[in-house]
Amino acid sequence: MVSVTSGAELVISEEEASSIAEEVHLLIRAGDEHTAWERMRHLHPSDIGSILASLPRGSRNAVVAVMSPETVAWMFRHMNPVVAARVGTRLGTGVLSAALAQAHPRTALDTLRRLPRRRAREVADALGQSVADGTLDEHDLDDAGAFMVSRFPTIGSGQGVGTARDQLREFAGTWYGFTHIFVVESGDVLTGQVSMIDLAKSPDATPIQSITTPVLAEVSVDTPREECARLHRHYNVTQLPVVEDGRLIGVIPAEFLLSASIEEDTEQMLQVASVAGDSADGPLLASVRSRLPWLTINLGTTFLAAFTVSLFESTLARVVVLAAFLPVVAGQGGIGGTQTLTLIVRAIALGQLVGVSASRLLVRELALGLLHGVWLGVLVAVVAWLWQQNIGLGLVLGLAMLGNMAMAGLVGAGVPLLLRRIGVDPAVASAVAVTTVTDVFGFLLFLGIASAAISLLI
Amino acid sequence: MVSVTSGAELVISEEEASSIAEEVHLLIRAGDEHTAWERMRHLHPSDIGSILASLPRGSRNAVVAVMSPETVAWMFRHMNPVVAARVGTRLGTGVLSAALAQAHPRTALDTLRRLPRRRAREVADALGQSVADGTLDEHDLDDAGAFMVSRFPTIGSGQGVGTARDQLREFAGTWYGFTHIFVVESGDVLTGQVSMIDLAKSPDATPIQSITTPVLAEVSVDTPREECARLHRHYNVTQLPVVEDGRLIGVIPAEFLLSASIEEDTEQMLQVASVAGDSADGPLLASVRSRLPWLTINLGTTFLAAFTVSLFESTLARVVVLAAFLPVVAGQGGIGGTQTLTLIVRAIALGQLVGVSASRLLVRELALGLLHGVWLGVLVAVVAWLWQQNIGLGLVLGLAMLGNMAMAGLVGAGVPLLLRRIGVDPAVASAVAVTTVTDVFGFLLFLGIASAAISLLI
Repeated sequence: MVSVTSGAELVISEEEASSIAEEVHLLIRAGDEHTAWERMRHLHPSDIGSILASLPRGSRNAVVAVMSPETVAWMFRHMNPVVAARVGTRLGTGVLSAALAQAHPRTALDTLRRLPRRRAREVADALGQSVADGTLDEHDLDDAGAFMVSRFPTIGSGQGVGTARDQLREFAGTWYGFTHIFVVESGDVLTGQVSMIDLAKSPDATPIQSITTPVLAEVSVDTPREECARLHRHYNVTQLPVVEDGRLIGVIPAEFLLSASIEEDTEQMLQVASVAGDSADGPLLASVRSRLPWLTINLGTTFLAAFTVSLFESTLARVVVLAAFLPVVAGQGGIGGTQTLTLIVRAIALGQLVGVSASRLLVRELALGLLHGVWLGVLVAVVAWLWQQNIGLGLVLGLAMLGNMAMAGLVGAGVPLLLRRIGVDPAVASAVAVTTVTDVFGFLLFLGIASAAISLLI
Repeated sequence: MVSVTSGAELVISEEEASSIAEEVHLLIRAGDEHTAWERMRHLHPSDIGSILASLPRGSRNAVVAVMSPETVAWMFRHMNPVVAARVGTRLGTGVLSAALAQAHPRTALDTLRRLPRRRAREVADALGQSVADGTLDEHDLDDAGAFMVSRFPTIGSGQGVGTARDQLREFAGTWYGFTHIFVVESGDVLTGQVSMIDLAKSPDATPIQSITTPVLAEVSVDTPREECARLHRHYNVTQLPVVEDGRLIGVIPAEFLLSASIEEDTEQMLQVASVAGDSADGPLLASVRSRLPWLTINLGTTFLAAFTVSLFESTLARVVVLAAFLPVVAGQGGIGGTQTLTLIVRAIALGQLVGVSASRLLVRELALGLLHGVWLGVLVAVVAWLWQQNIGLGLVLGLAMLGNMAMAGLVGAGVPLLLRRIGVDPAVASAVAVTTVTDVFGFLLFLGIASAAISLLI
């Protein structure tokens, strides 16, 4: 953090950033990259990065060509890791590898893994593998190892604060937002930590041991991002030691823990909407690749719903108006199920359901579904009756609504809880599964009751 | 952070926490609260809080009765603020106000605002208003003022590091996860900050001014939570000064900035699913209050869809099988629109669309919708043709699919972008609006084309 504020950069609002971006767009279109860069150069690196990311490819390369390689590296070093990865994927291989060679290893990795596999290899080759060695394997890139930094200061447990201070000043790596310094014995055996606050407050004569506290949690290189995010949020851990065979080999500093949590949240929110891994302004084909499989799977499930309806063709032929109410049944079941589902998925992610039994949650959502179903059932029955002047239709629709809302509560809670139980991420595919059930069950119920009670309808 | 690690608490996995919770449930059901508490007391306060929150009300009060008031206060002081608020809402007024009197003011506030209004008043009265004074007004509780702490150390700009250290040790308040100490002149005029790291590293003789850096951002008490989260995530700001009339009146420390960001994410994810403000295991009636209004509004929109279908009753009467394909049109439009919507809402929240013009995003999503529509249209046409042995039906359905996927892209992007433009939170009600459009438009297109080309279908 410290060094970020060393320049003249200012924090600006999103509106200001947008209007500067617009000016920059216009200047570049007029061929004046130098003025465009002048307009941006005093901004915070995160804002320069955002604006660069927002430019069309040609314009972006034109501005970057005007910036010195040192400036590009400075920008990459100081902007927020998520922005860095975004702008990084949009630069040419030459500029990008030069910048990444100077950037935080973590930023470099983050950028590399967002590139198409072939470009990632190109850039990694240009980087001389020093950063990317062995880390391009997609499997590892969401694990703790990809978030850790390998150069960090430590203190020996036998030292005094004054000696430790002298020694810390000699540390030649980057000072991330470290909140603690880890205490080691025999060079790299982790024995505790000293908070930066205690170190800042203590007089030189204080023995390190007297301000050493236990380390709350440690991870290994292959601890999943999800668990890092949990330690960060549930225990307020601000810095994680990465340990291998009892040796301290890395540290995940505060900013990368935060970025792990943000990525985790984004992925979860996008997963519920079947759009995980996509970005709002990346290459078109990448979006197709991430969305089309889910759309195709969903098509299969809608055909299941269509097949269900087709079973009742003879009933529909006799009471055509039933068709008009199919979207009412499906729409309400879908929204009810998605409400429950989203709430449960989020609560699981935040660890709020620890110790809460699945059956209690299921009963709760079933009860809620029934409560909502009674109200919505009565409402829908009255409206349908008044609209179609057909009290039988109102009754059938109201009953189907009651049943389907109860089902929506059950599957909305049941699907993510079941997925968690069998060790699958509860957000994946939950929404598609839930709406499939509420569609199919809703139609079965509505058209089934209608068929059975068809004398009421005609 | 420091003091959190002072006890014997350990970090445990969610599975371990769940199984301890189960044991605790059983012990309490057997009437043995003392052993139950013994089983928990060495855990981290966040885990004790989670387990307490998971207990049925009666059991929870039984355990809390066994804990000393000091222990309850200790727990509240050290557990993660989100858990604290959750467990806080589930305790009796007496226990709760005693605990909150000892807790962080921010935790107290957080708990109070999650209580039903009347209970919040009761607890606030018992607290003697000291914490809650003037802050129970719901309007303020999402603003910076509710996240700040009012007791924090500062350093005078003319001091040396050694003197500053001596003075910091005399600070009697709580050391939150401060990453910086603010530098002031004339007592409370903010002039800069010193990072804890620099303070920890520097020898006693260093003048404070030589390690002072500019403050990147400051907020006022009524800066919205959303903006605090943005500063936290976009600029990696780890601590925010709250300034009023040029005077430093508060600090938002790292843990409360994180909790602001988590709350912001949760609210957004739940808003997209029309379930904002609800919790997965709170009181049933609170859930009804938060969900039923949206379900009722959605009912209105599904009737709009029903009305659209009813316009084509004569066509449906002639080709009943069309009814079976209504869920295919609606289902695909809904998921396509929700994919786009979720992506755009999240990108807006993370500031990724700064400088990206709305028209570019709309064109992009329209193009994606068309691409998806071509693939899904062909697929759906072939399946419908083979299934129903009706090539005309396949053509009509394929065309409607193409058109509706394009519309899904347009409204999925258009609705949140429009809401942002007019200053409304883009997550609110977006999903309901988008699926309404894709339902109504999809049915109009599908049944409209079918009516126009009915000779092909029979």
